[in-house]
Amino acid sequence: MEKFRIREATVVYLEKPDLKEPILIEGLPGVGNVGKLAAEHLIDEIKAKKFAEIYSTDFPPQVFVNADGTIKLVKNELYYWKGEKDLIILTGDYQGMSSKGQYMLAEAVLDIAEEFGTKMIYTLGGYGTGLEIEKPRVIGAATDKELVEELKKYGVVFKGEEGGGIIGASGLLLGLGKLRNMRGACLMGETSGYIVDPNSAREVIKVLTEMLGIKISFARLDEKAEEVKRITSRIRSLEKALMEKESKEDLRYIG
Amino acid sequence: MEKFRIREATVVYLEKPDLKEPILIEGLPGVGNVGKLAAEHLIDEIKAKKFAEIYSTDFPPQVFVNADGTIKLVKNELYYWKGEKDLIILTGDYQGMSSKGQYMLAEAVLDIAEEFGTKMIYTLGGYGTGLEIEKPRVIGAATDKELVEELKKYGVVFKGEEGGGIIGASGLLLGLGKLRNMRGACLMGETSGYIVDPNSAREVIKVLTEMLGIKISFARLDEKAEEVKRITSRIRSLEKALMEKESKEDLRYIG
Amino acid sequence: MEKFRIREATVVYLEKPDLKEPILIEGLPGVGNVGKLAAEHLIDEIKAKKFAEIYSTDFPPQVFVNADGTIKLVKNELYYWKGEKDLIILTGDYQGMSSKGQYMLAEAVLDIAEEFGTKMIYTLGGYGTGLEIEKPRVIGAATDKELVEELKKYGVVFKGEEGGGIIGASGLLLGLGKLRNMRGACLMGETSGYIVDPNSAREVIKVLTEMLGIKISFARLDEKAEEVKRITSRIRSLEKALMEKESKEDLRYIG
Amino acid sequence: MEKFRIREATVVYLEKPDLKEPILIEGLPGVGNVGKLAAEHLIDEIKAKKFAEIYSTDFPPQVFVNADGTIKLVKNELYYWKGEKDLIILTGDYQGMSSKGQYMLAEAVLDIAEEFGTKMIYTLGGYGTGLEIEKPRVIGAATDKELVEELKKYGVVFKGEEGGGIIGASGLLLGLGKLRNMRGACLMGETSGYIVDPNSAREVIKVLTEMLGIKISFARLDEKAEEVKRITSRIRSLEKALMEKESKEDLRYIG
Repeated sequence: MEKFRIREATVVYLEKPDLKEPILIEGLPGVGNVGKLAAEHLIDEIKAKKFAEIYSTDFPPQVFVNADGTIKLVKNELYYWKGEKDLIILTGDYQGMSSKGQYMLAEAVLDIAEEFGTKMIYTLGGYGTGLEIEKPRVIGAATDKELVEELKKYGVVFKGEEGGGIIGASGLLLGLGKLRNMRGACLMGETSGYIVDPNSAREVIKVLTEMLGIKISFARLDEKAEEVKRITSRIRSLEKALMEKESKEDLRYIG
Repeated sequence: MEKFRIREATVVYLEKPDLKEPILIEGLPGVGNVGKLAAEHLIDEIKAKKFAEIYSTDFPPQVFVNADGTIKLVKNELYYWKGEKDLIILTGDYQGMSSKGQYMLAEAVLDIAEEFGTKMIYTLGGYGTGLEIEKPRVIGAATDKELVEELKKYGVVFKGEEGGGIIGASGLLLGLGKLRNMRGACLMGETSGYIVDPNSAREVIKVLTEMLGIKISFARLDEKAEEVKRITSRIRSLEKALMEKESKEDLRYIG
Repeated sequence: MEKFRIREATVVYLEKPDLKEPILIEGLPGVGNVGKLAAEHLIDEIKAKKFAEIYSTDFPPQVFVNADGTIKLVKNELYYWKGEKDLIILTGDYQGMSSKGQYMLAEAVLDIAEEFGTKMIYTLGGYGTGLEIEKPRVIGAATDKELVEELKKYGVVFKGEEGGGIIGASGLLLGLGKLRNMRGACLMGETSGYIVDPNSAREVIKVLTEMLGIKISFARLDEKAEEVKRITSRIRSLEKALMEKESKEDLRYIG
Repeated sequence: MEKFRIREATVVYLEKPDLKEPILIEGLPGVGNVGKLAAEHLIDEIKAKKFAEIYSTDFPPQVFVNADGTIKLVKNELYYWKGEKDLIILTGDYQGMSSKGQYMLAEAVLDIAEEFGTKMIYTLGGYGTGLEIEKPRVIGAATDKELVEELKKYGVVFKGEEGGGIIGASGLLLGLGKLRNMRGACLMGETSGYIVDPNSAREVIKVLTEMLGIKISFARLDEKAEEVKRITSRIRSLEKALMEKESKEDLRYIG
């Protein structure tokens, strides 16, 4: 075994699966944590198997402490799934913290994907609106016009001139992938950007699994969405109560 | 084809044109976006052809989304034009974000120019005044005194002791180029620095094309300048209206 | 002798001791300076001998001036001690200032430890509570469950889900060490985080020496703890006096 | 000639002088600009000759514009002087902007000095007091006790425990030089730290030239000190006048 040496992107293989042109799917932390929630849900539902870990000098110099008191170094993880279409799924604790780290990590992931013969990439993320969204839409971007048209059939919305930019791994994997002749699309669930948003993640993963022809349950994301709803509504009642109390006290001063 | 690998400066050639001692012209984003506006106008008017793209780990980790929903990785671009004097024109989405990146990118551009036999460089930019300028002058700086004298004949102004410094690609290409025995000048259009300034860009490109003996139309820059004027004047009337409304309301409280 | 060249981690050996599977102990500056105080106390008490210095471009570009007017470049230091169980102890002036530096320095230390055959690591630090702690507990984390259970026997507390993360050398040495098949534990003394805390350091070093079967005096740490107590209580009386004076003056204005 | 390539420290030789164990003297920008003023004064007075320039990706990406409109890339410069004791003098526009750059630049300078056989280094700087100093003392630090004693004979003051640290090139050249078995001392002129301080620089250069047995005039530094005094006193009278005017206006409102 090669000696472990941490660099901007150090890949540690747990196994080398035999995959056929696997589709690469990325869901890392970001706006509303939508991408990560979506990727983790997919991994759980299809029971994808971890085959590689990526460590980086561009992640925070940090370990997490598990509930049982054991530690784990911050990392990204790659899972695979063999089905009608094979999949590689990227998720993890952090994105790279510097511009250079982001590029080097994206390149390392593409190197792995290329080795397995990947020709297609889906990156998942949140699309911050600053407003609470009851029914989040899925906003898209893609490497080519044919794919844009294809995505529209699945209800993905394209925003034309307002489209703006995609920052981080979800953008870079597509941009750098295109330079390696990989096709790809970014699916972004609308989200306020203020809270972790399983509601938005569900819409993203719905579109993705429909496109991939994979049938999964969304029950767990529904539950998480319900819990977030309960928590935010509880916070809101507390805020309201506090404000009413304060305004009464204000009156006392005046009256 | 060599495998794409992104580094501090990765050049991707679309073609390798046959050029004779091309003059290098730089116009990247900066104060008032003057340099970029000027370079893009020149490219459009003389129909210069793109022959290379430069990607960098020192650009933001970002893709832009085009109006049609397709993405493009942020980059710099090199165009060429064959004429009485051949030209290479550098423009792009960003300048390097770190000091090191700036130096490495400038060096990469000079490597390309040197390969084509470049002996002369013009860098274009804005000269921030903090004041609105009706008739922007073109401020200059050059690698040698002969060139300073030459530029004065075209109305370029030299500010003597107040001259100060030139930060970014416009300065570095001249400074690093001089160490490779390239001559060069920086042409900076006066601009408030608060808005994108096509008015200033026109004055810069006028001097440049006159020096190069190239005849182009300035109509599109004139149009852009008119539009900026319309928008700023509209903003000003709105501000005035708002202030008047506010002062009336103040009176109501008093009266 | 190889020429001195400073890089992210440059090790200068003063001697190469003959050690048998030495246990690596780390105590670098951090929350309450607990780790550093603990490591220095151990070094002093067991009379460990310095055998290597580590310099780094990721430490501040700085020398300290000693009381006698001589200078010393900022560095980390490695000490050894030969006993029932051999020890290597890491302490120093600073931790790396960037994420990358932190990783590279941890890796350099692990390289040294690995060369000597290290299989076990203890990292020492403070656990910031934001509150003054009369009787600080020792909070733990470890690379494996067996070690967690072992530590519990020595009174080390594990916080389950609240555990959170460990940032810096104390975390990285364990996380990166685990990837080299080294076992390890982090011992963190509770501390307010507002002052240098010898009281907390004593609790940490007590657990450590008990586990290692080493008997040392804690008198010097007790003295330091007493001194810190005296100083903080003096500051508090001054603050109280000042507040009383101010409130009297306030009354004068009113009365 | 080797092709110019800018890196963290790129040395361009103008000539390779024949020097015998030259003493290295450093005076770069810093507190009160004392070190730079002192080094430049020495260069001017003894007519030292420039033999090398150092460029760096860690300097700002900037050119300066000279009074005649020509540009110069920011850099450090090395001068030499052949006398009873040969000298190499380092001055320049900037110090490195990052920790790593500082270390790499100091190492590059020491490489050059080592090649010429340097065994002794003097670094010059300011010692910020936060207070205006009528008669600035020269504060010292050195690589060994013998040198500390030697310096005391020339009136250099050592501050014992308060000594603190020396940040930047003045510290690093001594600290890294010591690791190469070079001896050295830092001479720091007391200065408020708020203004460029030729008065402090004169005291530093006086001690240095006395130690080196070099006789120079201090007239130009005296003149500069006079000018700084005139300017600061003029500013002070203006401030006083302004305050008086303001307090009269205040009275008008009241009266």
